Amino acid sequence: MTARAPEALTRIRGVVEPAMRAVVDAIADPHMRLISSYQLGWVAPDGSAVAGGGGKAIRPALTVLSAEVTGAAGETAVPAAVAVELVHNFSLLHDDVMDRDVERRHRPTGWVVFGEGQAILAGNAMLTAAVQALLDAGDAGARALPHLLDTIQDLVSGQSRDLLLESAEDVQLDDVLAMEAGKTAALMACAASIGAVAAGASADIVRRLSAFGFDIGMAFQLVDDLLGVTGDPAVTGKSSSSDVRAGKRSAPIVAALRSDSAAGRRLQDLFAGKPPSSEADVALATELIADAGGLEWASREAQRRLEAAIAQVADVGLREPAVSELVAVGRFIVDRDY
Amino acid sequence: MTARAPEALTRIRGVVEPAMRAVVDAIADPHMRLISSYQLGWVAPDGSAVAGGGGKAIRPALTVLSAEVTGAAGETAVPAAVAVELVHNFSLLHDDVMDRDVERRHRPTGWVVFGEGQAILAGNAMLTAAVQALLDAGDAGARALPHLLDTIQDLVSGQSRDLLLESAEDVQLDDVLAMEAGKTAALMACAASIGAVAAGASADIVRRLSAFGFDIGMAFQLVDDLLGVTGDPAVTGKSSSSDVRAGKRSAPIVAALRSDSAAGRRLQDLFAGKPPSSEADVALATELIADAGGLEWASREAQRRLEAAIAQVADVGLREPAVSELVAVGRFIVDRDY
Repeated sequence: MTARAPEALTRIRGVVEPAMRAVVDAIADPHMRLISSYQLGWVAPDGSAVAGGGGKAIRPALTVLSAEVTGAAGETAVPAAVAVELVHNFSLLHDDVMDRDVERRHRPTGWVVFGEGQAILAGNAMLTAAVQALLDAGDAGARALPHLLDTIQDLVSGQSRDLLLESAEDVQLDDVLAMEAGKTAALMACAASIGAVAAGASADIVRRLSAFGFDIGMAFQLVDDLLGVTGDPAVTGKSSSSDVRAGKRSAPIVAALRSDSAAGRRLQDLFAGKPPSSEADVALATELIADAGGLEWASREAQRRLEAAIAQVADVGLREPAVSELVAVGRFIVDRDY
Repeated sequence: MTARAPEALTRIRGVVEPAMRAVVDAIADPHMRLISSYQLGWVAPDGSAVAGGGGKAIRPALTVLSAEVTGAAGETAVPAAVAVELVHNFSLLHDDVMDRDVERRHRPTGWVVFGEGQAILAGNAMLTAAVQALLDAGDAGARALPHLLDTIQDLVSGQSRDLLLESAEDVQLDDVLAMEAGKTAALMACAASIGAVAAGASADIVRRLSAFGFDIGMAFQLVDDLLGVTGDPAVTGKSSSSDVRAGKRSAPIVAALRSDSAAGRRLQDLFAGKPPSSEADVALATELIADAGGLEWASREAQRRLEAAIAQVADVGLREPAVSELVAVGRFIVDRDY
């Protein structure tokens, strides 16, 4: 089944990308258009076209499939797919400024190339263009818009909690999971259900698809957290143990810190409110996170979430082949190298 | 006539503010709600209520009056008035981060109190809440929403141009005016017409009201620019000659630089790409801006814009007393101490 995920991604990208280009082309300000196009991987900083650019576009795929599983034409969901991908990129542009991240998809981030202010503004232009795309999409767009706006508030809230956690003392695992729910899972839940909303599906189907996307999003984030502790730089494009180095309180790290084990207590001493100060401490902290069960917990929880996601949409009468493709894309999102 | 402006402002504020509080209260994240409430002048940084807070709310007044001049009930325009004021405050929150402004309305700016990231996020929450407020307002809101979104793109574009101008060489007066059109006049044009749009007024009336607001906005900005050269710190809450000190290329300063006069050429030498370096240079630059005719030009242009604004709405059959109140508010916006 997993083998079909890239096929669905490719097929849907072929439909969504032209629509997305039309929406971005309609941003009147040339500088905002340039930065948006750069963020989407379409152009170099000077505006010249980049071949084969763009991300994997997993969220647009979820959106189009979420319409198809209800029996609607995928086209019904294209404006919503465009809007979701624009909102995703708006949040990446802004979050990279706030988190001072300098590289994304093996290129310098937007603020590094164009300056902080311009990156913030281009994020605003993309957010606004997302709303405009739905407004221009008749009844399907009108049905989808409130769903998208609620999600934007969740995203903003998740990033705000993330920033607050950076300076918080005594962080609990529930705080981290609530943050990740807003920051990652909410948009995935929206992506995996807004196509059905656009198509006018029943509340029960929308709820199931939303729960599917939410759990896929949580699993995706937990895998990302695992990569932040153990990850291979060649795969992640980040330094190894990047979250350990940064002193970040991600879910596996907090699970280890809160584990009430000898390794957890040693980790608390090592990690007391500051990043480890030497390579030896980074290596030791990484080992203690494993010894305290943080990695195992996160890995098991990611698997549990993936299974819960699939259970929401399997054997409930959704249309084939779309539902198999939806599950395959969900697996593809979660199953990364770790 | 001018005497009636504060009356209209007070009357309309009494209608709009409860609606605005309801929209802000509906922002689910408590930290985003706190920062939004602080930005709106309602609370102190710790969330305790501030008596008599809030700005003059001139934009909501324009919006409600723009419905009333068409014969519609002012209530029709309240959600649009809320949305315009939220968008205004979204842009203030973001612009203060980008411009590193530390004080507004005699209080520390949002990012100074809550941090840059949180201020950016709260701006996003307010922008999203503005769209949500219109979506919740039935047909009137649906009519108004595209108008608001176009304006947000203009605002973003104006701020982007402003940042680009900071580092531009060879700035022309037209560049500055185009920037000010986006940064200030576009939202005033929207404020002064979106109530009529919500009420379903004819395209001709909407066009006239929009032109009125646009010219009021340009006049307002030119007066602001004049205050930035000559202003009394007690009135403006800024240091005297603040734009001269900052080396800003505002409209009167660029008009002076481009005046092809002896004073203009001396100013060019003094102002070559950098702020004046001493108090004596600030005083000399301020004098040269006056001698080169920059202040007179801006003052005359502000007056011309105000008269053009009034000509758009006078004697074209709009309802009394609303149209007289609209003109009075317009005069009130422009006639500040300078």
